[in-house]
Amino acid sequence: MVFSSLDSSVAGEVEESFARAGYIVLSNSKNHRMDDDVPLLVPEINPEHLELIKVQRARRGWPGAIVTNPNCSTIGLVMALAPIHRAFGVKRVIVATMQALSGAGYPGHSAIDMLGNVIPFIGGEEDKVETEPLKIMGTIEGEAIRFADCRISAHTNRVFVEDGHLECVSVELERKAKPDEIARVLAQFSSLPQELKLPFAPERPVIVVDERDRPQPRFDRDAGNGMSAVVGRVRECPVFDIRFVVLSHNTIRGAAGAAILNAELMKAKGMIG
Amino acid sequence: MVFSSLDSSVAGEVEESFARAGYIVLSNSKNHRMDDDVPLLVPEINPEHLELIKVQRARRGWPGAIVTNPNCSTIGLVMALAPIHRAFGVKRVIVATMQALSGAGYPGHSAIDMLGNVIPFIGGEEDKVETEPLKIMGTIEGEAIRFADCRISAHTNRVFVEDGHLECVSVELERKAKPDEIARVLAQFSSLPQELKLPFAPERPVIVVDERDRPQPRFDRDAGNGMSAVVGRVRECPVFDIRFVVLSHNTIRGAAGAAILNAELMKAKGMIG
Amino acid sequence: MVFSSLDSSVAGEVEESFARAGYIVLSNSKNHRMDDDVPLLVPEINPEHLELIKVQRARRGWPGAIVTNPNCSTIGLVMALAPIHRAFGVKRVIVATMQALSGAGYPGHSAIDMLGNVIPFIGGEEDKVETEPLKIMGTIEGEAIRFADCRISAHTNRVFVEDGHLECVSVELERKAKPDEIARVLAQFSSLPQELKLPFAPERPVIVVDERDRPQPRFDRDAGNGMSAVVGRVRECPVFDIRFVVLSHNTIRGAAGAAILNAELMKAKGMIG
Amino acid sequence: MVFSSLDSSVAGEVEESFARAGYIVLSNSKNHRMDDDVPLLVPEINPEHLELIKVQRARRGWPGAIVTNPNCSTIGLVMALAPIHRAFGVKRVIVATMQALSGAGYPGHSAIDMLGNVIPFIGGEEDKVETEPLKIMGTIEGEAIRFADCRISAHTNRVFVEDGHLECVSVELERKAKPDEIARVLAQFSSLPQELKLPFAPERPVIVVDERDRPQPRFDRDAGNGMSAVVGRVRECPVFDIRFVVLSHNTIRGAAGAAILNAELMKAKGMIG
Repeated sequence: MVFSSLDSSVAGEVEESFARAGYIVLSNSKNHRMDDDVPLLVPEINPEHLELIKVQRARRGWPGAIVTNPNCSTIGLVMALAPIHRAFGVKRVIVATMQALSGAGYPGHSAIDMLGNVIPFIGGEEDKVETEPLKIMGTIEGEAIRFADCRISAHTNRVFVEDGHLECVSVELERKAKPDEIARVLAQFSSLPQELKLPFAPERPVIVVDERDRPQPRFDRDAGNGMSAVVGRVRECPVFDIRFVVLSHNTIRGAAGAAILNAELMKAKGMIG
Repeated sequence: MVFSSLDSSVAGEVEESFARAGYIVLSNSKNHRMDDDVPLLVPEINPEHLELIKVQRARRGWPGAIVTNPNCSTIGLVMALAPIHRAFGVKRVIVATMQALSGAGYPGHSAIDMLGNVIPFIGGEEDKVETEPLKIMGTIEGEAIRFADCRISAHTNRVFVEDGHLECVSVELERKAKPDEIARVLAQFSSLPQELKLPFAPERPVIVVDERDRPQPRFDRDAGNGMSAVVGRVRECPVFDIRFVVLSHNTIRGAAGAAILNAELMKAKGMIG
Repeated sequence: MVFSSLDSSVAGEVEESFARAGYIVLSNSKNHRMDDDVPLLVPEINPEHLELIKVQRARRGWPGAIVTNPNCSTIGLVMALAPIHRAFGVKRVIVATMQALSGAGYPGHSAIDMLGNVIPFIGGEEDKVETEPLKIMGTIEGEAIRFADCRISAHTNRVFVEDGHLECVSVELERKAKPDEIARVLAQFSSLPQELKLPFAPERPVIVVDERDRPQPRFDRDAGNGMSAVVGRVRECPVFDIRFVVLSHNTIRGAAGAAILNAELMKAKGMIG
Repeated sequence: MVFSSLDSSVAGEVEESFARAGYIVLSNSKNHRMDDDVPLLVPEINPEHLELIKVQRARRGWPGAIVTNPNCSTIGLVMALAPIHRAFGVKRVIVATMQALSGAGYPGHSAIDMLGNVIPFIGGEEDKVETEPLKIMGTIEGEAIRFADCRISAHTNRVFVEDGHLECVSVELERKAKPDEIARVLAQFSSLPQELKLPFAPERPVIVVDERDRPQPRFDRDAGNGMSAVVGRVRECPVFDIRFVVLSHNTIRGAAGAAILNAELMKAKGMIG
């Protein structure tokens, strides 16, 4: 088993070499996330996508395999959207993110640039937020994932926050639902990792808070040891149907913790020795 | 002539007293903004709304009058939307704001709360952003304003920035338009205050920037001496039609400067001695 | 046993009322710190000052007693100075502090004032830093404390830091000592709370770090669970003899944790039931 | 005439080449600041040091010359110390600085490192602050500068401030003086650049403020268009004689503005054509 977290074509090739050599590669990098035969895994949402490994091995002739986890700004969004999608159907989403400094790696941004400032651009990020959730919420059909039939528009911003990506989300639904129904569906969401009591799995994948000015990055990012998404301000949207704010810890649930939970799920399923 | 900037029912009554006593009250407060017979004035957008003063005087029997300017998070949005609305029709808008500390007045937020943090809530703000632009972009019909027939959903956030409200905007249009058409309409927008060369009027009401990571509050808020709205990242929206980022200086164009420009327009029109 | 942490003359009277009623009052407030018959206790430095309680009870006729802990900017300084004083004698000290926001309580400073700023003044603070260490490092003579015979000058500043007071200290010694001797004395310092293994006592009261740019508030304040002082940059002073930087956690070792450690010491000595 | 601002041995050689080629090199870099025959010029303090150019030319056989200005953390200190030194004699100084991000150049520090943090170390800075003022306040004796006979100890720190270095200073005097005498000497200080009305010269080289919590970097750094040093909190020092806080703009008076003022002085004296 190998953990990988470097974005680059060379890194992508290194990941392939390990898979070819028989390793399970748990990758936090973007290199293979959108490959047809590579699971983009969120254990609470699409554990069945691990089936793709068979396709991957058959196609590529590898004894090992590559399994990926999503981008740090995708994860909070999709953990909130997936239960809503299952219950009411998600048609269209407009999301604006306010992302933490640590998401850019170290050293990342200059302190001079970030003092009293917001940077309304993160290279390559919007495309990831707009596509990864569709694969994650997709269904396996034969040898491939049929992407979820919804559309996402993302505005991504960098703010002066240490850790924790905050996202403002407006959602158009297939079937109408009131904010309190949405809140209930999110609060009650529980899945395989919780059932299996995987060590890194948070007790509640989504925590819904009632205070009108929460979640806030500094005070809420560590919920569920950084593995829960925290949703607040669930309310009607005058343009779409509902809107809310979601926060997730970008370096835990959005990176290392995600890869570890993926490994734990695979171990529980006997896919890692 | 009197400038007013206090939000409260008492302040609203004080404004009325001055108007009753014959003064032109230029109000930056919310008290009378949405009154039927009170102009919510942006000189570049709706100078003809000053006609409402006649209605106001007739109805209330005042020798003076109250004229208001919009909320500090409305102004940047509406300065970008109005030219687009005129050219292509705006149907629906979803906007997420990242607003500066000074918007909350002094002392405003505790430094302890804002260190490495974002607060995803500003009391009363979303309602203002969702309604004021409709009145501003509305047309006079008889004795009243017919509100623009569009719908806005706003997510408002407080960030650790001194001055300058940044807004991520997605827009659904009546008539399709490409990003470069939108950018051109915005960059070429010019209006009565520019024609009259009012001292506080910026040369260009909307400045369109090309850099992919601009506008940024610290570096762009003073454009046009703080009286221009700065628009960047005009691009297609995969959910609606177009999207962009707009920045405006909340204490200049969003407050005192707006009231002064209103006064200058009224003076130029002979409505103030 | 009662914990108190409010600075005011009324709070000082309330503390007296509790002592009069038989309680041990563990006070984090300034009200009685400098009273002749009240211990200003740092368990690692002056546990014998608890003897003052007898004087206090005899003089005031109270069944209870008041025991205080030092100001949050005194504590880091005195934890570094006391072992040096014992080994080499401290004659004169000039210290400049950079103190965290939480030291001012909540809400404390306005975010508008602290953005990209330093405030070179904290009301009443310099006097505390200049006098409290003299009492703490003093010796009991009969019924009173003979203050340490040294002199301190303090410059206190507020910086944009969540927790952790950082102090730059220059020290004139009675007997010359090289920086490495000073570092050794500090690193080896251990005292009664460590011997008694009091639960809140850090394993090492003073931790000496070697990195040339440490300690830093955000990364080092939690050393010893926030109960250790962290010293770095021990080097020669071209004006006095030695100089260094010391950091301590202002809300743990500088407040609540100090009061708890005082209580633990008194319990271990059978003074609290 | 050439302006130079790069620290490195290569840059130092380039400066020499220009002087050899006949140029007056106005250098903001450290390369030649402490050379025996190179003026380290502050026009208000040591304009007579320009005499060194003769020595420099004679010794090195250059038609041009190198003239330097001090380090950005030296300048505020020496502008406050020099008038005091002239009036009362400065014997010993202990100073702690809180320096702005821009002092490190761009991109400088990582935003991740500076969020809610202070870095108590700036490479090479303490040595400069401890030696440069002695040369600047020195007197010409024959072909050399006799350094001022005082001693300085500096603690240098990096804080999360855009521009403006703040310094806490304790001073031992030759002849005792009260804080109000010191304040008067500083406030009345005026010199050759003021007399010559050089365009970049501030009306008052040192501005003394009375508010107990000033100067502050964000609000006071632009005093005198960034060319004045701002002194506050002048008070007795319980260890030395007096103490105060001084602020100066590091990228104006501490860099480019200093070099320009040097050029203006040389032009006024006919040393630049």
